[in-house]
Amino acid sequence: MTSKVNLAEKLSQMTDYWKPRIIGQLNGQELKLAKLRGTFVWHHHENEDELLLCLSGRLQIQFRDSSVEIGTGEFYIIPQGVEHRTSADEECHILVFEPIGTRNTGNVEDPKFTTVDVPI
Amino acid sequence: MTSKVNLAEKLSQMTDYWKPRIIGQLNGQELKLAKLRGTFVWHHHENEDELLLCLSGRLQIQFRDSSVEIGTGEFYIIPQGVEHRTSADEECHILVFEPIGTRNTGNVEDPKFTTVDVPI
Repeated sequence: MTSKVNLAEKLSQMTDYWKPRIIGQLNGQELKLAKLRGTFVWHHHENEDELLLCLSGRLQIQFRDSSVEIGTGEFYIIPQGVEHRTSADEECHILVFEPIGTRNTGNVEDPKFTTVDVPI
Repeated sequence: MTSKVNLAEKLSQMTDYWKPRIIGQLNGQELKLAKLRGTFVWHHHENEDELLLCLSGRLQIQFRDSSVEIGTGEFYIIPQGVEHRTSADEECHILVFEPIGTRNTGNVEDPKFTTVDVPI
């Protein structure tokens, strides 16, 4: 059987920004936690929609022609193929829901940001 | 494009218990909100894993040989095929992630609880 997961407890084990950690898998999808601060790289996910749920702080999701800001208890679904960039002035915690194996920088290989998500 | 969704705002529009409402779709999956109070029916989902994330209150997830309780900020993934029943002594709000079209009572047709989930 699986175990219950406490989001705050998992977050307390994470110290680095922009390094999503896998906290659950179901139906071919993964649930990840991430701490963000600063500005990410422009990218898109070719075949994956991506849900970002803000757990604390505020997150800007920028598109080439618009942007949206989400706060605690708000989520946004970024459709596959849509170029975007996330940005947070202050530390922000998010829950991510997307297909297993989705790379954080999507179509872009970035020396600073591209990472292989691992469980925590 | 999609719009951002505020969980508290959606919850404020919901008055009935055990009637999940669809608040998002991505990658063949649905995100639903539900208010729970009392005890649900025993059932299982043949081919669908089900994630329950507690947003407020406390939720008991009972299995035939054990049980787990989740509070605010905790989630549990119920594997496909595992019989279960949820129960909440006081009003409890949850977020549900599962494949599109998953029926709330799974393999069971229940006159009181079976419902067709609709968007809100």
